[in-house]
Amino acid sequence: MEDIEPGRIVRLEADAVVVLDQRRLPDEEVELRCGSSLEVADAIRTLAIRGAPAIGVAAAYGFALASALGEDLDAAYAELVSARPTAVNLRWALEEMRSDPTRERALAIHEHEVARCRRMAAHAATLVAPGSRVLTHCNTGGLATGGYGSALGAIRAAWERGLVEHVWVDETRPLLQGARLTSWELDSLGIPFSVIADAAAPSLMLAGDVDCVVTGADRIAANGDTANKIGTYGLAVAARHHGIPLYVVAPTTTLDPAAATGADIPIEERDPLEVSDRYPARNPAFDVTPAELIAAIVTEEGIHRAPYVDSLPRTVHA
Amino acid sequence: MEDIEPGRIVRLEADAVVVLDQRRLPDEEVELRCGSSLEVADAIRTLAIRGAPAIGVAAAYGFALASALGEDLDAAYAELVSARPTAVNLRWALEEMRSDPTRERALAIHEHEVARCRRMAAHAATLVAPGSRVLTHCNTGGLATGGYGSALGAIRAAWERGLVEHVWVDETRPLLQGARLTSWELDSLGIPFSVIADAAAPSLMLAGDVDCVVTGADRIAANGDTANKIGTYGLAVAARHHGIPLYVVAPTTTLDPAAATGADIPIEERDPLEVSDRYPARNPAFDVTPAELIAAIVTEEGIHRAPYVDSLPRTVHA
Repeated sequence: MEDIEPGRIVRLEADAVVVLDQRRLPDEEVELRCGSSLEVADAIRTLAIRGAPAIGVAAAYGFALASALGEDLDAAYAELVSARPTAVNLRWALEEMRSDPTRERALAIHEHEVARCRRMAAHAATLVAPGSRVLTHCNTGGLATGGYGSALGAIRAAWERGLVEHVWVDETRPLLQGARLTSWELDSLGIPFSVIADAAAPSLMLAGDVDCVVTGADRIAANGDTANKIGTYGLAVAARHHGIPLYVVAPTTTLDPAAATGADIPIEERDPLEVSDRYPARNPAFDVTPAELIAAIVTEEGIHRAPYVDSLPRTVHA
Repeated sequence: MEDIEPGRIVRLEADAVVVLDQRRLPDEEVELRCGSSLEVADAIRTLAIRGAPAIGVAAAYGFALASALGEDLDAAYAELVSARPTAVNLRWALEEMRSDPTRERALAIHEHEVARCRRMAAHAATLVAPGSRVLTHCNTGGLATGGYGSALGAIRAAWERGLVEHVWVDETRPLLQGARLTSWELDSLGIPFSVIADAAAPSLMLAGDVDCVVTGADRIAANGDTANKIGTYGLAVAARHHGIPLYVVAPTTTLDPAAATGADIPIEERDPLEVSDRYPARNPAFDVTPAELIAAIVTEEGIHRAPYVDSLPRTVHA
């Protein structure tokens, strides 16, 4: 069982932010050096690093780098905050950095994010029944959070407690973050899994082969509506049809109390070329799952149930 | 607007069955010559030709070829009928050929299958409201039926009547028959479409951008339960959740009165390598949509509504 060091996923050096290039996993483990905040923003935009908590950490490091290099900090903020629109962690981390643009603050953001993951995973593991076949979507492991993981951290914690029999990994088209990244992490951890085409998940539910669905989040509105990787909504509808609980596992940095409902969350449309290099295509990167389809939202503060407007934490806890 | 000639999709020559190799579309239009029934079975197994009606036609030609070449016809039957397990058209066509193993009978099977498509398309088009945004899955066009198409034929007929505003094409992982083949056909026909990741379909439904779902079938049980390409079941669940009708369009050769329900339909599991070349994977090629999620089944005989055990035709009409 091999863990990914947080500093291997993303770290701040004297003159660069260095990320493990997730576009090239699992084929190659290659680091990408970003020598300016602009290059960090590019790494976020092009998915060299992705996952809501991880891009928050990368942005914090990018801002600290901008500060160390004497860059214009307003320009660095603007560049980084607009790199991707859906994950709210980016904005949160940059607001923190604006009030304290030091290396120490960025390191603390990273460290606290990983600590949050471990705490939320311990909470979420209590929701998993012994012998569970758990289905997950996209990648929510250490790669997505800067260490340990959110939903995949929960699966890992449940597996360490002997509760998980098998993990179904949605391949997660178009960029296959499930097939490439979640598989790479589960393989390293020695947790048994099978990759499936995204469209196969409902038939596994019908066959009785799925006990729960566990996903991460990119932004959670005050009422619990949750933006996450495209396909999460369909899983939630299918899970509800089969009476299977869907749990969302995400740190408080992913909460956006300023968004009253999912309608207030901007959904990123990415380049259609990611879907088809020949024909017209649509490529929404995220969808919004209404709160009523979510059995529980788990943060580092605990397990939150509907009505989420009352149960969700309102502030980020370090 | 360019039609695909039935003889370009699959035809019988003196010493071979020739198919347009669908594995290489849309990049290359290459013909594959099959010089024995064994080679025809291989072409079916490896998806050089696919789609329930089209593999029935190919098997009929393969059997006629076996007869013309003096092959052992019992062996030819056994090889062809087992090439793929889910589509019942294969068995139907081979039973027909066993009683009349001539070139003329095979040609008639092909001709009648295309004629059935045109008739069912005309029926199905009456279900499409003006201005419809129609979502479809996999490929059910001329390539899948030997000419014109089943569900895609219906979409085409509805478009020719001015009823279709846009077609959403599920890319249909793992082999992308939607992104590759349906796109290729719609592009040739000049019908406006966008490819989407399979997992994006439910979010389009939630946004109000889908008016109906139209799919084909690989086998329909006596009660209306329908086996079709993996992902159809999830679409059906999502369509029901949003109050959107799902129509199945298929010829009577796809009906299997011997299967009382979907539980009697064998589901092909294909090579996991089609899903992942590196990690463990599951690759069910089909799923079964329960009849209660299907708003209507359309054959060349008309529009059939629940209870399907009463409304579906019991015999194949030439």
